[in-house]
Amino acid sequence: MPAPVTEIINTGTELMLGSILNSHQQWLCRELTQVGFLVSRQTAVPDAGADIRQAVSEALQRSDLIITTGGLGPTSDDRTRELIADLLGRKLMENAQARSNIEQFFAVRAKPAPRSTFVQALAPEGAVVLQNAHGTAPGLAIQVLPPQSSRPQGSWLIMLPGPPRELHPMFRNQVVPLLRRQFPDAPPFTCSVLRTTGLGESYLEEMVAPQLELFVARGLEVGYCARVGEVELRLSSSVPGGSELVQEAEAVARQVLGDWIYATGDDSLETSLVRLLTAREWTLALAESCTGGYIANKITNVPGASAVFLSGVVSYANEAKQKFLGVSHATLETHGAVSRATAEEMARGIRERTGADFAAAVSGIAGPSGGTEEKPVGTVFIGIASGEDVVVHHRTNRYDRETFKFVTAQQTMEMLRRAVLKRKEASA
Amino acid sequence: MPAPVTEIINTGTELMLGSILNSHQQWLCRELTQVGFLVSRQTAVPDAGADIRQAVSEALQRSDLIITTGGLGPTSDDRTRELIADLLGRKLMENAQARSNIEQFFAVRAKPAPRSTFVQALAPEGAVVLQNAHGTAPGLAIQVLPPQSSRPQGSWLIMLPGPPRELHPMFRNQVVPLLRRQFPDAPPFTCSVLRTTGLGESYLEEMVAPQLELFVARGLEVGYCARVGEVELRLSSSVPGGSELVQEAEAVARQVLGDWIYATGDDSLETSLVRLLTAREWTLALAESCTGGYIANKITNVPGASAVFLSGVVSYANEAKQKFLGVSHATLETHGAVSRATAEEMARGIRERTGADFAAAVSGIAGPSGGTEEKPVGTVFIGIASGEDVVVHHRTNRYDRETFKFVTAQQTMEMLRRAVLKRKEASA
Repeated sequence: MPAPVTEIINTGTELMLGSILNSHQQWLCRELTQVGFLVSRQTAVPDAGADIRQAVSEALQRSDLIITTGGLGPTSDDRTRELIADLLGRKLMENAQARSNIEQFFAVRAKPAPRSTFVQALAPEGAVVLQNAHGTAPGLAIQVLPPQSSRPQGSWLIMLPGPPRELHPMFRNQVVPLLRRQFPDAPPFTCSVLRTTGLGESYLEEMVAPQLELFVARGLEVGYCARVGEVELRLSSSVPGGSELVQEAEAVARQVLGDWIYATGDDSLETSLVRLLTAREWTLALAESCTGGYIANKITNVPGASAVFLSGVVSYANEAKQKFLGVSHATLETHGAVSRATAEEMARGIRERTGADFAAAVSGIAGPSGGTEEKPVGTVFIGIASGEDVVVHHRTNRYDRETFKFVTAQQTMEMLRRAVLKRKEASA
Repeated sequence: MPAPVTEIINTGTELMLGSILNSHQQWLCRELTQVGFLVSRQTAVPDAGADIRQAVSEALQRSDLIITTGGLGPTSDDRTRELIADLLGRKLMENAQARSNIEQFFAVRAKPAPRSTFVQALAPEGAVVLQNAHGTAPGLAIQVLPPQSSRPQGSWLIMLPGPPRELHPMFRNQVVPLLRRQFPDAPPFTCSVLRTTGLGESYLEEMVAPQLELFVARGLEVGYCARVGEVELRLSSSVPGGSELVQEAEAVARQVLGDWIYATGDDSLETSLVRLLTAREWTLALAESCTGGYIANKITNVPGASAVFLSGVVSYANEAKQKFLGVSHATLETHGAVSRATAEEMARGIRERTGADFAAAVSGIAGPSGGTEEKPVGTVFIGIASGEDVVVHHRTNRYDRETFKFVTAQQTMEMLRRAVLKRKEASA
């Protein structure tokens, strides 16, 4: 059986205006990939009726599985439920369980239920109602048979609420089991992602492509994705025996790329750093100026970071650099806050005060203002302390403010990762 | 002349696998809205040839302006250029300027140019070549006339490179002027967004909808977008006189919603807080435990934050709470790190040590582990210091780790905003 053709439709005028980021797309694509459904199209349309209708009609021509998000709420611009019932010619009927859930939702919060909220208890005839454990709008799953669907087995149309904390558990707890029941023969898809930093996209391809040619002939797909400061190499296959094929190809790529690979799969640099430190029971502290807490935030996003991360200081003002980190007044006067000497004293200061095994300190000019001819916007000094030793690196990251923080954080974490690897080798 | 029908096509298998977030969609939608082009559909497809071809063919049936991103790079999975040339039956020819830019790009970096890179200098016959000031792949703009386009005036198909730091300046400096020349009669679109926090979506609609009915009859569109901890009210219009209509409706909505509105447009809570503090020349300091630097990072994302933000301490370990903030050993022993007493001492400690006018301290349990029966995951104490006074708020934010940080940060910044407003009134 060929893989089910899968697509996602996100509705919401706010998406089309750019008011919000479409994080559903990424989340659903990733979750679907993990259970063997490869998304081949994702569409976003405004709340307006005609657009949703057209997008769903088109999807019923070509896809076995269609997942929509949004438009199930209580307000007048939430129209997905009604439009789909109309498109499929099904009556909307009240679902008793959904109604009672809504009543309970408001009772628990000791608030009166607004009348408009009960529209959310309506479901098109024949729909599977996916109760919402974290909100008021249930999800709806409808099997659409030919000729309303052009697919030989018909299509499954699954409508999910927009808020992530309602969507996520509903997808994992209710949609995934339904998919396993309805698509028992979906073939496995194997994908391996190697994340590298420090190499350009063309160079990476020149290094690995010749080594992977034979695998490609056997059904391997190779993808490259360049982002600021990193390139991802993606090896995937959906042919029979694809899992072994990907595994073999990955081994070859690993040999070619070696230390350029900082993580695999969805692991981030911060996850890989926290994991390295945890394994050795080593600790980390941070002193951040221009990154403003960005690195500490990244590190503490990793569950279990508290075992290795002791403390961070966001020393924006010069007084904070002196008070919390012991940077000397003389250094600040002579060299300035953005300097090799200050970064070094910051790294040493935070390490001594916390007793951490490793520390990083960052001082630079994020912009948009504050640059000078000698130290233009983007200038940054990164101090890395490994025990008593401090090494300061100088970089120029000319980007907008948020990208500057991101790039500087990636560089800092990569320097820390290399420092940890080095000490690990030395102590082995 | 009716508004040009506009759509966006993002290409990239990594989007379909969920490896990356489609930030182009939001960015382009927002930029296009600002210059009067309302996006009515956004599609993402894998790099595979058939999908890109089909998406572009469909778009040529219905849209006046089509913008694609991605697939213009040098590697074998970058196929947009070639596929579109093939679809339109145009020859690919080398563009001398693009070739010389690529040569220069590598010369400046003192690196040899990989052979594969020069495929990026190819352009379909008749295309406007948009030179890339920040990378090697130029953009391409092609006027597609009927019958290849089903639109009476034909369609403009504009292909842009994927990396944001190449895409953004190319769009602003080259695409926008081209659009103004080619679509001189695009009607204005006016949109105003009021951002509220503390009200549910249904309540907000019940409050404002009756007051806006008359405006809706005159051509106002009203949208509601609920997110964790906030609801956005969107007032827009594209009828003649729409700008005044939106303005009048906004005045009414402001009167109804009052202080529930924390910002307008794209302004974030942190921007509105920094602005309030800057206007009074008041300063801020932070002591974060469970939010791990998230709030400091948000605040320092605002350009000019350095005028008001003095310092933050990310006191993850108990030792850090004692050393940097002066929380007493006895308090930690008796009440624990996650407690009203600790949050209060943290707030007082950071304020005294920095001399800031306002301070916030956060201590809680982000999870997934670390909860107890008495203090479950999601428990958080937020201390707000306004001068000598400290008020501690208790919240239970049961979410995943990153959402917990986000929600807690929003609550903290909203409490700070209210504290600043209160002191402002008192001192007025």
